[in-house]
Amino acid sequence: MNKLIPSINSDTRIAIIAHVNPDGDSLGSIMALGLALMKRSNQVNIFLNDELPGRYSFLPEVHLLKKYQSNEFDDFDLCFVLDCGDDRRFGDIDLLVKSKEVINIDHHVSNNGFGDINFVRTDASSTCEIVYSIITEELEIQLDEKIATCLYTGIVTDTGNFRYESTTSYTHKVVAELLDFGVNIQEITFNLYQNNSLNSTKFLGHVLNQMEIYFNGKVAIITIDQDLLKEFDVKYEEVEGIINYARDIEGVEVAVIIKEATTDGEIKISFRSKKNYDVNELAKGFGGGGHKRASGATTKGTLTDVKESLLNKLEKMI
Amino acid sequence: MNKLIPSINSDTRIAIIAHVNPDGDSLGSIMALGLALMKRSNQVNIFLNDELPGRYSFLPEVHLLKKYQSNEFDDFDLCFVLDCGDDRRFGDIDLLVKSKEVINIDHHVSNNGFGDINFVRTDASSTCEIVYSIITEELEIQLDEKIATCLYTGIVTDTGNFRYESTTSYTHKVVAELLDFGVNIQEITFNLYQNNSLNSTKFLGHVLNQMEIYFNGKVAIITIDQDLLKEFDVKYEEVEGIINYARDIEGVEVAVIIKEATTDGEIKISFRSKKNYDVNELAKGFGGGGHKRASGATTKGTLTDVKESLLNKLEKMI
Repeated sequence: MNKLIPSINSDTRIAIIAHVNPDGDSLGSIMALGLALMKRSNQVNIFLNDELPGRYSFLPEVHLLKKYQSNEFDDFDLCFVLDCGDDRRFGDIDLLVKSKEVINIDHHVSNNGFGDINFVRTDASSTCEIVYSIITEELEIQLDEKIATCLYTGIVTDTGNFRYESTTSYTHKVVAELLDFGVNIQEITFNLYQNNSLNSTKFLGHVLNQMEIYFNGKVAIITIDQDLLKEFDVKYEEVEGIINYARDIEGVEVAVIIKEATTDGEIKISFRSKKNYDVNELAKGFGGGGHKRASGATTKGTLTDVKESLLNKLEKMI
Repeated sequence: MNKLIPSINSDTRIAIIAHVNPDGDSLGSIMALGLALMKRSNQVNIFLNDELPGRYSFLPEVHLLKKYQSNEFDDFDLCFVLDCGDDRRFGDIDLLVKSKEVINIDHHVSNNGFGDINFVRTDASSTCEIVYSIITEELEIQLDEKIATCLYTGIVTDTGNFRYESTTSYTHKVVAELLDFGVNIQEITFNLYQNNSLNSTKFLGHVLNQMEIYFNGKVAIITIDQDLLKEFDVKYEEVEGIINYARDIEGVEVAVIIKEATTDGEIKISFRSKKNYDVNELAKGFGGGGHKRASGATTKGTLTDVKESLLNKLEKMI
């Protein structure tokens, strides 16, 4: 087989990065690829300039993650950029210029092929699914339990437990292989889903209770102000998933969360749609964007004003 | 390969049943096996004496399900009993006596091998996983999209979306095969998880909000009386899943739902534990039982009395 990635020896200086606001797939893929490449090179650097979200701290060897600071590092031979829909999504890091070859590995449709070498497969469930192929077929490096755990975590989170339409027969074949290396599903499930804070669970209860329904049950709106966030002491990431509860109600076509940001006068809006409506259009009306079924926007104003403006836009749409 | 199931021709009279209170695995397995056997015999009867829960009405060909009434049917050559932990779990049906050969297919550890032929694999994720092997290897009947959809539904529900520890590499291999027949994951996900009633979502919010925490956060108790059930107009099956939200809180070791039954003075208790406690023991104290991590009991009394008695038992345990 023709190999695309230049051969790697013990002195090859390697950088691995992913997008800002890390998630299971970006963290799983940088750790998996990093651990695999460390079997070849002694100069592998896995960079994370964000804080590691607590629920992913169970991933093996995360202590190897380091912050990239420009003045600390010279050039790199290879820079692997993972799960970045475009070349801006990894922040200000000047790694691309400082690396001889940039290898772009991603599954987002928005990816413009910014690498010198590009592995962009938009039909893949996750970047971890592509990294699996690259490790086993392209690099021909043997998997182990730690690498398999990282890859499994990326796949399971980016497919919503194998429920999103990107999940294919191949996805399950890959996972079958990974489990043979001794991945501990119970432990991963516990860390990802069974370790929620009491506050976030109470908060979920509260906002579902307060949720408002409009347009004959077709629209569900959840409004969250700063007082509420303070009262329950919940983190930004704990709010995100709640919109799915609103979308998953029988008859609801569009679900919206309107949230007061910490910055004065800034309002964040998240949109989800079920089948018939394009919430990308809706988000554009507030200067945002995204996909047909999931989008977002940041705007200025009060919660009341933004909600009124939203209801007006919805009235025209529904 | 030696076949265990007697050869089936177009006149073989076949009955297929599963346990009462049908779930995804029992329904998926009787439908899948039934549809497969209909490719061989013209006398296949798939019996369901309960009502079909709405969320499973999307399963292909469920109109074929019929009620068994003793006086309407003569003897059967073969009776397949699926997903029944013991030979009482399918109710009062006299099929076992009226069938020449009883074929018992199940994955519950409690199964006592009551059949003339027994396919009991306690390491299987689901009865559907076993039925997959029986259809493809033992009966050598070709799968199709409808059969694959039924099998997938059973596996995905009985593994909690591939998260329970019974999920193995083989489970994912089977699912990979099933998806190749065109199973529509999106449609199944929608029917199973994204079509909740507004009332049940509001009810979830209310009870999470009211949930009580004891013993330094180790125990979460949800109490549900008849008035609450009436106020939100929720069905029994919609209450069941809520206990997982209580169990999945950081620090909670034991989660309990105490529920007033429709029958006067009857209280149903459900228990879940995370890691360190055996809730089977706890359930036994109320005349019930189950597994270490999931159990239940039905008792007499008032909600207040039962809760007090529960707290006493918990105090000794924790």
